[in-house]
Amino acid sequence: MSSVLQRRQQLLGDATLFYEDPIQIVKGDGVLLYDEKGKQYIDMYNNVPCVGHANPVVVEAMAKQMSTLNVHSRYLHEGILNYAERLLGLHHADLENIIFACTGTEASEIALMTARIATRGRGIICTDATYHGNSSEVIKMAIAASLGEPANAEFRAIPFPQKYRPLQQGLDEEALCELYLDKIRQAIADFEGNKIPFAGMFVCSIFANEGLPDIPGSFMAKATDIVHAAGGLMIADEVQAGFCRSGDFWGYETTDFKPDIVCMGKPMGNGLPLSAVAASADHVASFRKATRYFNTFASSPLQAAVGMAVLDEIQNRDLLRQSAAVGAYMRNALKRIQEDHPSMGDVRGCGLFTGIEWVTEDNQADREGAIAVTNKLKEKGFLLSNAGILKNVIKVRPPLVFEKKHADQFLEAFKEIVKDG
Amino acid sequence: MSSVLQRRQQLLGDATLFYEDPIQIVKGDGVLLYDEKGKQYIDMYNNVPCVGHANPVVVEAMAKQMSTLNVHSRYLHEGILNYAERLLGLHHADLENIIFACTGTEASEIALMTARIATRGRGIICTDATYHGNSSEVIKMAIAASLGEPANAEFRAIPFPQKYRPLQQGLDEEALCELYLDKIRQAIADFEGNKIPFAGMFVCSIFANEGLPDIPGSFMAKATDIVHAAGGLMIADEVQAGFCRSGDFWGYETTDFKPDIVCMGKPMGNGLPLSAVAASADHVASFRKATRYFNTFASSPLQAAVGMAVLDEIQNRDLLRQSAAVGAYMRNALKRIQEDHPSMGDVRGCGLFTGIEWVTEDNQADREGAIAVTNKLKEKGFLLSNAGILKNVIKVRPPLVFEKKHADQFLEAFKEIVKDG
Repeated sequence: MSSVLQRRQQLLGDATLFYEDPIQIVKGDGVLLYDEKGKQYIDMYNNVPCVGHANPVVVEAMAKQMSTLNVHSRYLHEGILNYAERLLGLHHADLENIIFACTGTEASEIALMTARIATRGRGIICTDATYHGNSSEVIKMAIAASLGEPANAEFRAIPFPQKYRPLQQGLDEEALCELYLDKIRQAIADFEGNKIPFAGMFVCSIFANEGLPDIPGSFMAKATDIVHAAGGLMIADEVQAGFCRSGDFWGYETTDFKPDIVCMGKPMGNGLPLSAVAASADHVASFRKATRYFNTFASSPLQAAVGMAVLDEIQNRDLLRQSAAVGAYMRNALKRIQEDHPSMGDVRGCGLFTGIEWVTEDNQADREGAIAVTNKLKEKGFLLSNAGILKNVIKVRPPLVFEKKHADQFLEAFKEIVKDG
Repeated sequence: MSSVLQRRQQLLGDATLFYEDPIQIVKGDGVLLYDEKGKQYIDMYNNVPCVGHANPVVVEAMAKQMSTLNVHSRYLHEGILNYAERLLGLHHADLENIIFACTGTEASEIALMTARIATRGRGIICTDATYHGNSSEVIKMAIAASLGEPANAEFRAIPFPQKYRPLQQGLDEEALCELYLDKIRQAIADFEGNKIPFAGMFVCSIFANEGLPDIPGSFMAKATDIVHAAGGLMIADEVQAGFCRSGDFWGYETTDFKPDIVCMGKPMGNGLPLSAVAASADHVASFRKATRYFNTFASSPLQAAVGMAVLDEIQNRDLLRQSAAVGAYMRNALKRIQEDHPSMGDVRGCGLFTGIEWVTEDNQADREGAIAVTNKLKEKGFLLSNAGILKNVIKVRPPLVFEKKHADQFLEAFKEIVKDG
């Protein structure tokens, strides 16, 4: 074991790490990362530094604001208002107000509370392969998922929608959609049967932790209608899906529905802890009235300045277009490779977010195979990870500044690895 | 209403604000803050920018790290290990491992889970005027407090310890201490009676939200013994108390007990979201094993670099000594003013944290009086706030870089205000 790893265990305990042989990263620059020996990696995992590692525009905005003022939000400050206005302007018009926080978990907490307060409900539908954060309440969604049964009467996990396997089995897309919608109707009926008032449905707009499945085209819009008809609210987790990741600015545009409450996080601050929840003015008002929510570090001049710099970079470098174009280019190339390599069961995704589902010869989920490929790619200088409930999906999710030339380098290395088996 | 305030309500809804006539702050420098018209304020509220607003050493460390690398913690990085080692070195020796997070709420969540996992218990004792954060689970402590009765069977609020009023009523200190300890014994017995296994006691080491009461000298050590004897763990919330605030490095040194789990937050990163929990290696191991906790923005190179710069500034500028000395100087001066002003019912505190309890002529809590003084001080250029369950305690909690000359300016203004009634 390396001395750094040993020292880490002595100080932090057994904290989670990537790769069979973990790596030490000391420097970043755009899509590139470097280890302590100077080895260069192309980062194809990190969505947080969306406008690039060590982005100079972000660094300058951060340093400038921090050397001017950074204080809590119980004084007035125009920076956060300018940022709020710009951010809300990027959303559909019914999202009128915003609540800032620091982490995705905090955004999920706020969204849950907002939905429950607005509906006077408690019951929440999630999927059976989800993760929305790690607080005591929010983690109940992941627990409901991993147990397959409700861990807590107030959370009910439905099977996540996917086309890949069911369509292989000969179902048609419309019948499949109805099948998944029925699971929602059934969960709502179960809540009613258990006298748990329904509060809503909480899902990642593109089902990222579920392994980024292709879903029946009309599923999300129809699900939203069912949720609304039962008095619930639709909560879209855009922590992974948002900020151009999906090829649209928001994941809910890609999967085509209109959420009532939206959580934002990870890429918002390019690494500065920054998250937010947007909802209607009425829903935010009832949340604020009931909770008097205050977050020491959030809604600050620093968050505003850094969040603005990230939006500037996205706009000035046309990263929305780049995410859609480079992502499509890479997926098309991967699909061509797939034709000769049946272990690549499915290649799917949207924007700069691609999932490659790894399968065995008899078409079973191949967790070991997927993990082996990720480790081999790491040796060759490409950092990726594994997703999906069975971890057999190779997750390709580079910073938005990832270009065609990086995709070409990756495709070259990937071809060599799959050729060698 | 100012246009900024109006715009804020349109974008953020009715988010909390300070002062009857809220102020707009545009610039900070050390202990000074400036509004949009250039009016200068001495900041006597903000503990977060502990080494001063816009501290250049912190800004430089932040900019340097952000332009080198800031990435999540599933790669190895020595910066966070150096910071963890230095931070643990400042604590008592049984706190061996550390878990980093972003906010005080997140630290409270981790501490709660750690205690519950380690003890296999659920029942938590808190005080009846507490606040440890705003997540669904952590807020239950504040709710238990505000209702006076347990809001949830798993949280039980005991009366916070204080000497001021009970000793006025003629109780002696030792009897008073036993009275409060009995409340703990009773809560533990109640948990047992309700078949809720006991997990521990969760308190701010210096009872900051309770209004910073003087407490019977041996209370915390004896409370810890009682909690341990019942199989529980003692959780110290050092989010407000720690980092030299109390005149010692940690509040638990000031109130003289040895906690099993310690939460840290607010001043750690001088405004960068940064919090942490320290505990024994065994307790951290059982927490990590049960939860596989991961926090996207925490345990990062950026947190480490900024946290280190804050510790450097505290050490190089001898702020521990300054906190103790300037705080004692100010309290002594306030006690001399108190002799002629019976509305100042009690002057108390530790280090750079002072509470002035405001009372009516017949010795009742005077919320309006305390709030009026705070607003008048604001007009004169001194920013403070109100604390305690009745908000009749003027909270004096300047950045650690607050010096004797600032105290003298404040005392001058304060004297004029109390003289005018």
